[in-house]
Amino acid sequence: MKDLVMTNVRDLRDGEEFVGFYLIKESEVKQTNTTPPKDFMNLTLSDSTGAVAAKLWDASESDKVSYPAMTLVKVQGAAQLYRDKLQVKIVRIRKTTEADGVSLTEFIRSAPVEPSELLATVQATTDSITDNDIRAVVQYCLDKIGDRLLHAPAAKSHHHAYYAGLVYHIVRMLEIGAFLCKQRPFLNADLIKAGIILHDIAKPVEMVSELGIVSDYSTQGKLIGHISQASLWITEAALQLGMNPDSERIMALQHLVLSHHNLGEWGSPVQPQLAEAVALHHIDSMDAKLQMIEDAFATIPDDESWTAPIRGLENKAIYRLNF
Amino acid sequence: MKDLVMTNVRDLRDGEEFVGFYLIKESEVKQTNTTPPKDFMNLTLSDSTGAVAAKLWDASESDKVSYPAMTLVKVQGAAQLYRDKLQVKIVRIRKTTEADGVSLTEFIRSAPVEPSELLATVQATTDSITDNDIRAVVQYCLDKIGDRLLHAPAAKSHHHAYYAGLVYHIVRMLEIGAFLCKQRPFLNADLIKAGIILHDIAKPVEMVSELGIVSDYSTQGKLIGHISQASLWITEAALQLGMNPDSERIMALQHLVLSHHNLGEWGSPVQPQLAEAVALHHIDSMDAKLQMIEDAFATIPDDESWTAPIRGLENKAIYRLNF
Amino acid sequence: MKDLVMTNVRDLRDGEEFVGFYLIKESEVKQTNTTPPKDFMNLTLSDSTGAVAAKLWDASESDKVSYPAMTLVKVQGAAQLYRDKLQVKIVRIRKTTEADGVSLTEFIRSAPVEPSELLATVQATTDSITDNDIRAVVQYCLDKIGDRLLHAPAAKSHHHAYYAGLVYHIVRMLEIGAFLCKQRPFLNADLIKAGIILHDIAKPVEMVSELGIVSDYSTQGKLIGHISQASLWITEAALQLGMNPDSERIMALQHLVLSHHNLGEWGSPVQPQLAEAVALHHIDSMDAKLQMIEDAFATIPDDESWTAPIRGLENKAIYRLNF
Amino acid sequence: MKDLVMTNVRDLRDGEEFVGFYLIKESEVKQTNTTPPKDFMNLTLSDSTGAVAAKLWDASESDKVSYPAMTLVKVQGAAQLYRDKLQVKIVRIRKTTEADGVSLTEFIRSAPVEPSELLATVQATTDSITDNDIRAVVQYCLDKIGDRLLHAPAAKSHHHAYYAGLVYHIVRMLEIGAFLCKQRPFLNADLIKAGIILHDIAKPVEMVSELGIVSDYSTQGKLIGHISQASLWITEAALQLGMNPDSERIMALQHLVLSHHNLGEWGSPVQPQLAEAVALHHIDSMDAKLQMIEDAFATIPDDESWTAPIRGLENKAIYRLNF
Amino acid sequence: MKDLVMTNVRDLRDGEEFVGFYLIKESEVKQTNTTPPKDFMNLTLSDSTGAVAAKLWDASESDKVSYPAMTLVKVQGAAQLYRDKLQVKIVRIRKTTEADGVSLTEFIRSAPVEPSELLATVQATTDSITDNDIRAVVQYCLDKIGDRLLHAPAAKSHHHAYYAGLVYHIVRMLEIGAFLCKQRPFLNADLIKAGIILHDIAKPVEMVSELGIVSDYSTQGKLIGHISQASLWITEAALQLGMNPDSERIMALQHLVLSHHNLGEWGSPVQPQLAEAVALHHIDSMDAKLQMIEDAFATIPDDESWTAPIRGLENKAIYRLNF
Amino acid sequence: MKDLVMTNVRDLRDGEEFVGFYLIKESEVKQTNTTPPKDFMNLTLSDSTGAVAAKLWDASESDKVSYPAMTLVKVQGAAQLYRDKLQVKIVRIRKTTEADGVSLTEFIRSAPVEPSELLATVQATTDSITDNDIRAVVQYCLDKIGDRLLHAPAAKSHHHAYYAGLVYHIVRMLEIGAFLCKQRPFLNADLIKAGIILHDIAKPVEMVSELGIVSDYSTQGKLIGHISQASLWITEAALQLGMNPDSERIMALQHLVLSHHNLGEWGSPVQPQLAEAVALHHIDSMDAKLQMIEDAFATIPDDESWTAPIRGLENKAIYRLNF
Repeated sequence: MKDLVMTNVRDLRDGEEFVGFYLIKESEVKQTNTTPPKDFMNLTLSDSTGAVAAKLWDASESDKVSYPAMTLVKVQGAAQLYRDKLQVKIVRIRKTTEADGVSLTEFIRSAPVEPSELLATVQATTDSITDNDIRAVVQYCLDKIGDRLLHAPAAKSHHHAYYAGLVYHIVRMLEIGAFLCKQRPFLNADLIKAGIILHDIAKPVEMVSELGIVSDYSTQGKLIGHISQASLWITEAALQLGMNPDSERIMALQHLVLSHHNLGEWGSPVQPQLAEAVALHHIDSMDAKLQMIEDAFATIPDDESWTAPIRGLENKAIYRLNF
Repeated sequence: MKDLVMTNVRDLRDGEEFVGFYLIKESEVKQTNTTPPKDFMNLTLSDSTGAVAAKLWDASESDKVSYPAMTLVKVQGAAQLYRDKLQVKIVRIRKTTEADGVSLTEFIRSAPVEPSELLATVQATTDSITDNDIRAVVQYCLDKIGDRLLHAPAAKSHHHAYYAGLVYHIVRMLEIGAFLCKQRPFLNADLIKAGIILHDIAKPVEMVSELGIVSDYSTQGKLIGHISQASLWITEAALQLGMNPDSERIMALQHLVLSHHNLGEWGSPVQPQLAEAVALHHIDSMDAKLQMIEDAFATIPDDESWTAPIRGLENKAIYRLNF
Repeated sequence: MKDLVMTNVRDLRDGEEFVGFYLIKESEVKQTNTTPPKDFMNLTLSDSTGAVAAKLWDASESDKVSYPAMTLVKVQGAAQLYRDKLQVKIVRIRKTTEADGVSLTEFIRSAPVEPSELLATVQATTDSITDNDIRAVVQYCLDKIGDRLLHAPAAKSHHHAYYAGLVYHIVRMLEIGAFLCKQRPFLNADLIKAGIILHDIAKPVEMVSELGIVSDYSTQGKLIGHISQASLWITEAALQLGMNPDSERIMALQHLVLSHHNLGEWGSPVQPQLAEAVALHHIDSMDAKLQMIEDAFATIPDDESWTAPIRGLENKAIYRLNF
Repeated sequence: MKDLVMTNVRDLRDGEEFVGFYLIKESEVKQTNTTPPKDFMNLTLSDSTGAVAAKLWDASESDKVSYPAMTLVKVQGAAQLYRDKLQVKIVRIRKTTEADGVSLTEFIRSAPVEPSELLATVQATTDSITDNDIRAVVQYCLDKIGDRLLHAPAAKSHHHAYYAGLVYHIVRMLEIGAFLCKQRPFLNADLIKAGIILHDIAKPVEMVSELGIVSDYSTQGKLIGHISQASLWITEAALQLGMNPDSERIMALQHLVLSHHNLGEWGSPVQPQLAEAVALHHIDSMDAKLQMIEDAFATIPDDESWTAPIRGLENKAIYRLNF
Repeated sequence: MKDLVMTNVRDLRDGEEFVGFYLIKESEVKQTNTTPPKDFMNLTLSDSTGAVAAKLWDASESDKVSYPAMTLVKVQGAAQLYRDKLQVKIVRIRKTTEADGVSLTEFIRSAPVEPSELLATVQATTDSITDNDIRAVVQYCLDKIGDRLLHAPAAKSHHHAYYAGLVYHIVRMLEIGAFLCKQRPFLNADLIKAGIILHDIAKPVEMVSELGIVSDYSTQGKLIGHISQASLWITEAALQLGMNPDSERIMALQHLVLSHHNLGEWGSPVQPQLAEAVALHHIDSMDAKLQMIEDAFATIPDDESWTAPIRGLENKAIYRLNF
Repeated sequence: MKDLVMTNVRDLRDGEEFVGFYLIKESEVKQTNTTPPKDFMNLTLSDSTGAVAAKLWDASESDKVSYPAMTLVKVQGAAQLYRDKLQVKIVRIRKTTEADGVSLTEFIRSAPVEPSELLATVQATTDSITDNDIRAVVQYCLDKIGDRLLHAPAAKSHHHAYYAGLVYHIVRMLEIGAFLCKQRPFLNADLIKAGIILHDIAKPVEMVSELGIVSDYSTQGKLIGHISQASLWITEAALQLGMNPDSERIMALQHLVLSHHNLGEWGSPVQPQLAEAVALHHIDSMDAKLQMIEDAFATIPDDESWTAPIRGLENKAIYRLNF
């Protein structure tokens, strides 16, 4: 390819040619309405700074096979404004090779902290739980989900919908939880920690995800849901660890998980009836909503003030103040 | 006591004296507003034909101790109309003795079929389940609840709120289920049977009841609820019986139980997504609503046309036709 | 046309050429975005096994006139996967002729039982109503709707939305009703029969349909609705047959029809207040929901497990179990 | 009785003795909690200026028979403040005699215009309908309800809940309707007039009332409701008058009646889809709400600013301004 | 341009060529899917009789700059039916010049009365307010909004969404208000007038509009809303005019504005608790709904009976009667 | 009075005589149903440890005048269990005198921190706001409410319904706010501080309270509400301090106050559309709900596990764990 500047998605400008490495996030073959129709491809090129629509005209049979979603490619193209949005016309495209020295993880949206570090925080918090039974159940469930916590998103699109989004959500909630237990000592810190770690622990089996991007809900996810699934794991933990599944400790853990969506219409079969369950719901909600805003601000250009409408905030857009 | 006719509650008439054996269903001590105030007791006397309010004036300390709820008594009294309702003024009262030859079960509201016979039907249906795993899980849960199924009501007041109400509800649902599987063979009969037997199986631990009368929800019932509790037992059954708790059979059973209230606001964390789950919800609802009406008709005098408002029917009263 | 295998819609395969007879269910003329634009046609080809999108490129003026919706055609074409869906590129197309020996009814979705047989069942059930007045009113309304019952669908898309769907729905409900009256003899069997036959009897005038496919609601349907329309017919029947329109029998029939949607927000001006009205609503709902599922299963390939979301089931998709 | 001033309810003062003629609006026998208990009566004494609670202590058997609701009595008593409310202790009471020269209608709450005058306005408006068919149907329904329109209230308690309340409501609505047809000539004045007169025409058979006071809904009222009942009368009118019940005129009248509650949850099986139906709903609502306020202001003392909460206004109290 | 008849949008006919002056209401540049793609423009041409879609094929760079929305142009074109709708193929296009003698206001949808005349009515009504304080506050707010009242629409699309729609809405409401104060003299006419004039007075700053067409809500409109904004202006008026902002008069004005949407979910922070506030809400609603219908009727051809669904009427379409 | 132990409400025991100083929280005169009836008084005696019902039999005219609510009294009485609740029979009662050395504030429920200290924290936080305009507006509103912040409750009964409850709520929210701004630096700390201090600042004029006990809402509170009232004060502050009321800073403050109830049905005319507004709502909700629980735990005996149902928590009772 000719001598062009390597350019991130965020830095593409109307009318300029460029090269760059990108991840194909979405890919589809379409046909023109000409007679006879010709195939072309609609690709979404992305890197950690954003995503842009791209057209690959006159797509060959080989192109159609070579560039599915989740492919890492080198692209030469031209950026053009089209209906107020930048669009890329692809001039050249090829898959990346080892020699390019690029790896997938550079190209995906991800939590702003190293996942292994986040996981270590979760493990350290688990170790700090003083009650032996509670700690053991939390550890059992953590072991059950294992490495998936390193990359699972917290949701399909609602909030923290990216690589390691779930563990990032947990860690930030643990920070709020720690503050709150200090502010209100009548709260049981062990339960707050356990509730935060367990509340969404079954999300990685509720959704099918790759690189932090959820493609669908699993059958298990649809028929049982992450809330009930986590409660079943707590019972499993109690039985496998030789505890009484009807003890008050286990019942409290079940309740924290089952009630954390607060209302029946949001998926909780029981409503919060422990102080820690009420706290857990509010910690969860506060962290999710503020993260939605922080993430939405990151995707709009510096000279824009309004984000797109955010579904999790009653579909309201958020305004960025100028002072 | 003097020579009066033994009279059932349903046959008490204004202005007549009577004697009879009754169960005290409710009991409270009150004070008159005289100066100084005097103690009297408000009792609810009941037998299998109904219940009536009664006053025991000038209650002694011994009376207050001797006549709590759930006591079987012989009463001599006078029935009087008071604000359009019959009320009993107690003249004499004593606890029953062995010599009276009466037993508690004659005095309580109960399913119209012998509980042991109902339980036998449930057991026979369980035995008829062809799939080994499904049958074993159902049996495990039946064993877990054991004899409580002989007397547990199906609800606090909503429907089938009497002795053996739950097992009666199950058996009637099994009849509808059998019909439906014949009418629509694409339904899996094993799952319909299992779903019907398991759907409310945890109700006896969700509520505290005696003689079919629920006094309160248990702490377990409030914090976990019968829906999630039954799902936990299914996991327990699978683990104890050496089955894979993530198999499709177990997942289907979980789903039937979890979804049978249909909507989140009615307590189901997931909505029906199996044909059998949709069927189960409708069988459950149809049996509960029609039983409410049948039971309500049984409590109104022959010359009245309207029942009291029925909470489970959007608080509508039901009209009994005259033809 | 060349020697190709006659192929049903369900058996079309990617990349294969075929011929076949189909019904055009939908038809529209579009223009390409070329300069100058050219006309082409988007057709939906259907037979009793399903439906598929098709393109007729370079449509002539004669084509545009010859191939409106509801036309029976012979097509030679090629099936191609386009965005994960099969699409047909039409090579040749012509209207069918008498010589082809095909008739419209082979190509439409229809109840699985012969309509005349279903209608006979409805008539026999009407004849079995023991109360003279009730039977006469039912017969009057049946006569009023006449042959339209042979082909009317039960809904635009909600459930039983096909040829003879309404009468099929009635017959299946009558089966449930018969079971229920046997299980619970306090229900008035005459009213159950009459309520089932009358509840949707005005649907054929509420909707404009051809061959079981509803194109729109009628003005009468929008301004009065099938529920009130049926109640007006009952009054008309009473008056024409010389009965008292205020008698309890007529009032009961009115109530059954008026209340069968159960709630005001679902279109019922009064809520069920007869035992038979409560039963009718549940029979109606149970049959409609289970039929939606049975029909949805019939339209998905054998190797798929999930149906499309079903609007009448809170927009939930249904999972087909693998055991 | 001794020489006391004849006093209206509105003029009773704490600590003063009085005599007066009153209507007993409510009457019940109660028992004191003394031993033995004694009978006394709780009466509600009313005249056109208001109502007050009264006690008749030591009620004899004859008292209990002589003073049911709807009895006109002469009372000597003493007014006392009891828990911030005036209450009457009855000293003497007797039924009125012909010699007293008082008649029932002086004692009841009533529309502020003579009922016969209101009815004449309704008749004159009916006569002014230019379309022969519409006028004939309205006249048929007016004849059907006959004299009951002279005294029927418009509701049990919601609005215009007094003698001739319904016809007063109709007349005031006709005034708004006349204004509106002048302001917006595209509205069909015949339909506006007919819709206003017919919309609540079946209320007198929906409710059981005496002297403008509704004691209950009738069985017909509960099972059919005034909305559907009026629509059935329109069909009856059309059939008896030899009109086509499916004509657009009749359909329009049906629609006006059926849709006038606007929403399904408020009892309308169809929603307004004629300009005149939208207008009718707004005229009805505007008149009802403002009358509620005007009536509420009339019942509070001059020195109070807030009415009691008004159920028909989202249970809001209304503030009377001081300027 | 050649010698063609000047034609209004409403009079375009399929297959005919024409010329005319139009306002471009919407404008966008699109690309064909040909290879290489070519630019064309989708324009919406409008005049006071309606609007029509138009295509400008092979758009030059100069075209793209010259024909944004809100441009007045002379067009030569051909009308063609495309998917049941008329579409214009533009043959020639140019901006209008002074010589053409056309002005923007001829081309936009507008209230049916001259804006200056409407404004004069508002001013005269303001002058007729007898209470000095109320009149001064209304005048202050009128001055604040100034000339914007001459052209501001009353809404983005809901109702009165055209040039001078807001002031037309106010004047029509004043007519209803005057009638109502005459019918029910207990209403305070000053408050009714003031409430009507002030209730939507801040709409011109809530929305960004040009020529009566709202392009978006302003940031102020989103963050504060016209209801609270108007209440802030009342406080400002009181302070600037030296009145006590806590006086009952000012409080009443605040309440009228704050409560006029009736319910919290419709944007009112308090619910109507003054008679005049209840009246204001009903006047507002009645005028808005009936105007929606009147305007909808004006946009459908004479031979059609149903309007499009109207969002403000629960998304119901309205039927135009044939008699 | 005789030589009895001074006893707090929490320490009263069945059957024991006692003396003590109490505040009369509620007081009413009732009559016995004896003939003739006698007056007695129902009092609620309270101190900082709780409240108990008490009867003063044979109340004299002087008693009725001497013991209204909010009177401080010395009582000699006997505690008795009556229907499972302790009740006091008053033997002697007198108003306290200066010699008793007791002051009102010892007897009322109050925030657990000295009000002046809480107010000092609010002032210090105000001083720490870096933006001059924002700080000045906050200070203006604080000055406006003045000393009332020392004792105003935060609500009638919902949460923090006691002496200095409002300022305690503010201070606890400021703690959460400070944590959150540290955790998420993109939040504007000045706005978080200002929003917390201002959000409920108008509550003291919305409700009529004495000693932290709300007796009613004020007329201003009902017609305008604390949300709009606070927004009006912000405008007043801007105008009086010479700022532009339309500046972005002022608009942001308005928005924080207006949106803090989150939804229209909860009283907010606009929904949160600033990050700080979303945060403010969550901080408010988290603090209010957890305080409700903490306060509810304080009122139940040590041996009880369940609180009474808490209205602000969807009417759920909360369970106190035993570990």
